[in-house]
Amino acid sequence: MTELRIAIVGFGKIARDQHVGAIAAVPGATLTAIASRNASLPGLPHFATIEELLEKGPPIDAVSLCTPPQVRRAQAAAALAAGKHVMLEKPPGTGVAELDPLIAMAAEAKRTLFATWHSRHAPAVEPARQWLAARRIKSVHISWKEDVRVWHPGQGWIWEPGGLGVFDPGINALSILTKILPKPVFVTAAELSFPANCQAPIAASLTLTDIDGLPVTAEFDFRQTGPQSWDIVVETEQGRMTLSGGGRHMAIEGKTVAEAPDEEYRELYRRFVALAATGASDVDLAPLRLVADAFLLGRRIVVEPFVD
Amino acid sequence: MTELRIAIVGFGKIARDQHVGAIAAVPGATLTAIASRNASLPGLPHFATIEELLEKGPPIDAVSLCTPPQVRRAQAAAALAAGKHVMLEKPPGTGVAELDPLIAMAAEAKRTLFATWHSRHAPAVEPARQWLAARRIKSVHISWKEDVRVWHPGQGWIWEPGGLGVFDPGINALSILTKILPKPVFVTAAELSFPANCQAPIAASLTLTDIDGLPVTAEFDFRQTGPQSWDIVVETEQGRMTLSGGGRHMAIEGKTVAEAPDEEYRELYRRFVALAATGASDVDLAPLRLVADAFLLGRRIVVEPFVD
Repeated sequence: MTELRIAIVGFGKIARDQHVGAIAAVPGATLTAIASRNASLPGLPHFATIEELLEKGPPIDAVSLCTPPQVRRAQAAAALAAGKHVMLEKPPGTGVAELDPLIAMAAEAKRTLFATWHSRHAPAVEPARQWLAARRIKSVHISWKEDVRVWHPGQGWIWEPGGLGVFDPGINALSILTKILPKPVFVTAAELSFPANCQAPIAASLTLTDIDGLPVTAEFDFRQTGPQSWDIVVETEQGRMTLSGGGRHMAIEGKTVAEAPDEEYRELYRRFVALAATGASDVDLAPLRLVADAFLLGRRIVVEPFVD
Repeated sequence: MTELRIAIVGFGKIARDQHVGAIAAVPGATLTAIASRNASLPGLPHFATIEELLEKGPPIDAVSLCTPPQVRRAQAAAALAAGKHVMLEKPPGTGVAELDPLIAMAAEAKRTLFATWHSRHAPAVEPARQWLAARRIKSVHISWKEDVRVWHPGQGWIWEPGGLGVFDPGINALSILTKILPKPVFVTAAELSFPANCQAPIAASLTLTDIDGLPVTAEFDFRQTGPQSWDIVVETEQGRMTLSGGGRHMAIEGKTVAEAPDEEYRELYRRFVALAATGASDVDLAPLRLVADAFLLGRRIVVEPFVD
């Protein structure tokens, strides 16, 4: 197998915490360079910008974009124009429509564009999908509550326009939801709580449904201290399924039926290597579309200012 | 030709101002009934709700939904389930994803779902598209400024979540833009001005572009008194094209080249009759997607309260 030579662009928390180790663990993938304004990794070629990387860097086949979403589209376009495969961290963009030209570029150049949703690769997600496929679903409730100060320290971009605020983790829940349910869902109502000094919501309540009227609710909150929750509870006519820990643990009526260590990012890179072998793309915009709809039709309330 | 027997659902300003006259003028279309909480038309069967219309009304083939967008999805689903063709006023919904199940229902039932964009049928729009197709475009500026008190008297729904505010007319400009430009555009920045007492913006500034970096700007304002503007100015290497009057007038370097009386709604019903003859659908969500993206990535500022 030819190695896929990958450069990471944007070397912040997620790149260091997840991407470096995952690339090292996946056969066929090699970390070849890093482009980042400030950060680098000893022993690896380092460039300040993606333009410099593409112009002066070592030969690479692909870039993995771990920069904030606000700058990622232009970087993806530059990489595709240079003939590189592109992997996008979630969310894939600051808007839905900006992905269309990238999809067209990738198709024309026969290069891979891979919009990742890491939570979909959590170990209990596929078992949950299979279990639900054979049941009659009565309702779904999502509770995704975490302390932003613990999980997103100093990530100022998250509060800027396009940064998504609490939807940055919340979109992970929506990426799981849209994978495990048998029918597409859409947002019918939303309430978004904006801190008086921020351009992105710190909390959100969503009501969704599908063509059959399935009741789905979601509570996202960045202000959670104490116990954190990344849970999806599905009531069915054949019992209650609980998917907790962000998709890592599945229980039926409280009894664990699936649990495994997290390999989300390794799965992403395994898939990226497989996609790049043929130049196929994988871009599912359903989760981002739900967030855009929540902003479009949501009621906005202003809450107390947030100070990091 | 068999007549398409149409019921209008929602008998407000747009239904009275445009739909009744257009149906009367288009061969093959007949207004058969009206469903509206309060309003009716002498000599026509009247029902309070779409459910009552479908259950107790005269035989109809189609419904034209002129209700506010917040209630239209459920009405469209009910009509499609009853085997009727459905025409949607713009915007086609309060969110983008809610259209998917309707599109699937229509396809399965072999019924027409027609998401209309009346401004695309303004007389100078097609000439503008053709003229631009042969030119090199340098920039686009949209100025869509009208007095909400004149054009939307008492339409409280416009200020509620899902009501779009100034994007209710603004989406008309975006529907023309996405028709006349040769390549798809996307929003890169937006500023939305929300009155302190409203859930929808009263003004908006948008920056858009396409894959080639074309500069596109748009100014939407509901607070315009004095001269109103519904203009799109396109600078090309072969001169300036001005599309004004909401698409009714086209000029090159100030010289009129196309102008005709408004037949927008007649064109819509001609197309609805043609689509229904085969049960084909026509649902282009590009304009609504641009608005959703503007809400998603836009900067919000609070401005003085609006009192109708």
